[in-house]
Amino acid sequence: MNQKKWVLMATAQTPTNIAVIKYWGKRDETLILTITAAIGMRPWFYPLMISVSPLIQTTFCTTTTVAVSPLFHQDRMWLNGKEMSLSGIRYQNCLREIRSRANDVEDEKKGIKIEKKDWEKLHVHIASYNNFPTAAGLASSAAGFACLVFALAKLMNVKDDEGKLSTIARQGSGSACRSLFGGFVKWITGNKEDGSDSFSVQLADEKHWDDLVIIIAVVSSRQKETSSTTGMRESVETSMFIEHRAKDVVPQRIIQMEEAITRDFPSVARLTCADSNQFHAVCLDTCPPIFYMNDTSHRIISYVEKWNRSEGTPQVAYTFDAGPNAVLIARNRNIATQLLQRLLFYFPPPLDTDLNSYVLGDASILKDVGIQSVKDVEYLPQPPGISNNNASLKYKGDVNYFICTKPGRGPVLLSDESQALLNAETGLPK
Amino acid sequence: MNQKKWVLMATAQTPTNIAVIKYWGKRDETLILTITAAIGMRPWFYPLMISVSPLIQTTFCTTTTVAVSPLFHQDRMWLNGKEMSLSGIRYQNCLREIRSRANDVEDEKKGIKIEKKDWEKLHVHIASYNNFPTAAGLASSAAGFACLVFALAKLMNVKDDEGKLSTIARQGSGSACRSLFGGFVKWITGNKEDGSDSFSVQLADEKHWDDLVIIIAVVSSRQKETSSTTGMRESVETSMFIEHRAKDVVPQRIIQMEEAITRDFPSVARLTCADSNQFHAVCLDTCPPIFYMNDTSHRIISYVEKWNRSEGTPQVAYTFDAGPNAVLIARNRNIATQLLQRLLFYFPPPLDTDLNSYVLGDASILKDVGIQSVKDVEYLPQPPGISNNNASLKYKGDVNYFICTKPGRGPVLLSDESQALLNAETGLPK
Repeated sequence: MNQKKWVLMATAQTPTNIAVIKYWGKRDETLILTITAAIGMRPWFYPLMISVSPLIQTTFCTTTTVAVSPLFHQDRMWLNGKEMSLSGIRYQNCLREIRSRANDVEDEKKGIKIEKKDWEKLHVHIASYNNFPTAAGLASSAAGFACLVFALAKLMNVKDDEGKLSTIARQGSGSACRSLFGGFVKWITGNKEDGSDSFSVQLADEKHWDDLVIIIAVVSSRQKETSSTTGMRESVETSMFIEHRAKDVVPQRIIQMEEAITRDFPSVARLTCADSNQFHAVCLDTCPPIFYMNDTSHRIISYVEKWNRSEGTPQVAYTFDAGPNAVLIARNRNIATQLLQRLLFYFPPPLDTDLNSYVLGDASILKDVGIQSVKDVEYLPQPPGISNNNASLKYKGDVNYFICTKPGRGPVLLSDESQALLNAETGLPK
Repeated sequence: MNQKKWVLMATAQTPTNIAVIKYWGKRDETLILTITAAIGMRPWFYPLMISVSPLIQTTFCTTTTVAVSPLFHQDRMWLNGKEMSLSGIRYQNCLREIRSRANDVEDEKKGIKIEKKDWEKLHVHIASYNNFPTAAGLASSAAGFACLVFALAKLMNVKDDEGKLSTIARQGSGSACRSLFGGFVKWITGNKEDGSDSFSVQLADEKHWDDLVIIIAVVSSRQKETSSTTGMRESVETSMFIEHRAKDVVPQRIIQMEEAITRDFPSVARLTCADSNQFHAVCLDTCPPIFYMNDTSHRIISYVEKWNRSEGTPQVAYTFDAGPNAVLIARNRNIATQLLQRLLFYFPPPLDTDLNSYVLGDASILKDVGIQSVKDVEYLPQPPGISNNNASLKYKGDVNYFICTKPGRGPVLLSDESQALLNAETGLPK
């Protein structure tokens, strides 16, 4: 390792992910292992719970730049521009695991040469940024840890594949395990105590089913939510349904979902909705009960259920994570257009809203709806099947905004240094 | 039977009841039998579900007058002053069962003599009135059918005891089975196909634990609710949790609740809250999901849970039936006073409200709170343990009104004819 004042960087982008079969409950809090029923469990394991999660990637993502330099005196991290501590066990585990797998790196142009043994002595700087609001509840920690592990692996020339990297990301955040791939991903529970066989595999890439459209309703909420880590622990300790779900329901649903991902939308929709509702039922069966969905969430479910029933076959699936926001999956663009039209009818923006800040993401769907300004929303036709009595039931202000997106790609390395979040000279945030 | 133009009447009052261990799911829709797991089930039975319900009577009640007369040409009924059809199978079953058990009746003063064989030929008039708003979701059909069966039994000199009468009331409305007694009541599932061993027994009368106070929050709701009959059927058909609840959870809870009713308030509270939440979890695990609780219900639960936790032992239990209204059970009058104070703090009445129409029932608790007018509510102290940040979180208008009441007595016969709802000469509503 030469002693020049260099900074070596890598920048990656990782999408968020949304579980369509929910993970809820850990068997090991430190290693973040999900729990199966089949294995002989040690007493310090949580008694039971869930396994794997096929998921859909969205185009919303986290960008992370990691850097090493002999200039750095300690590991430091900035999240959305604000410095934060790296002392937590989850960060420490990820950093240690990645460092132990580092290899020789040479950058001839910059005259940098780092040998395998040098990595232990070099400190890292990390800057991470989410292009979606953190309040959106879009699993920002999942995307964050996946992106961190991926970027560090590239920087340190770690030769392991994404599956192996997913076991490291898992130790940062359970769901991060899935964000190392695009498209449809499955998190395999694994049996080993050290968690080395608990990793993700890609079931299908994002091109496999690219007519799906995802609309996210970011719902207003006055409630303080239970963190998913706390909620999960309390469910495992007190719910009388969680074991039954883990043993008898989820394994079967995983098999059905894997089959359905071969483009059988009605099955994907039925499984996704049922599993979301069951996950929230387990939360409600927890002591004290956990409520992540609110009246607006319930309303969105009712509209979708009613629509699906009137069509005879599901057109839209819904799923809710640990918060009130609805993630709606439309079977194609035409249905997505109708969906957005209905959502805007029920949840119109306040009159002083800029439409571009009310419908984010792929705005071309908004164009298909025929809406150019907030004023146009008032003239949207009443969705079919709604009786005139209910026509006045509009809920202005109950949704903060909508996001239109699609199943996304996996993590990528950004080679253009202008996209880096750290200064190439100082290694500090730009 | 002499042919004079007489009208013979009986008037009864029956309290509503609130299940603390919930009944949800029928094994026979016509006979209204709950379902146990142990019995050999015939294929037309619903596959599974619940058993018995200890409950607490409230002082809110139904009054029913029944009359027979040779003047009447058909069976007729008026509910809250409005004539309604008696052709439904539930009414027909109750009327047939009671008539088949009728005995000789003689009223010497009025010169009336009815022989056992005459009852089949005589038509009845029925008038029923609830002294609580039907929108309160306080199991009005349960009180109604129990009162009808009780009044008819008195009129027709039926000699069966309340247990036997409960099997008849059960065919009108499942929960009516419990309203033939005051205090704490258990509905025994029974095994027989004809339902003859599915009846209620009194565990303790209303004097056994008379320091309990019940406060009901009647919650505003814009949602149309799923009827409990429809909801129950859909849960039995689609919930993956309902069988587990029926087989493994409820039988154990029934035993624990019977023990706890020996005045162990913390256990009653824990079991009541857990069972209410689990019942709603089953509703959520139904396809399509059923939401009976709304954001206001959730808020009330959160306040109670927080308070109970801060005291180290439960002070208040909550339970919700098929609607958003909270039934809160305070361990004594002192706690009830604190509870009402907190509820009024969070859910103040609109300023133009008359306090007497906002707190119904036993208004003496309001006096203990130190509130004489709506204006006083504004100056209520902030409940302990609430951070100043949340002090502004008041939800005016989210509760329609409160009812203060106590565990109540069983059905009684009103001997004062002025309380009858039918005219003694014409047999028509007064």
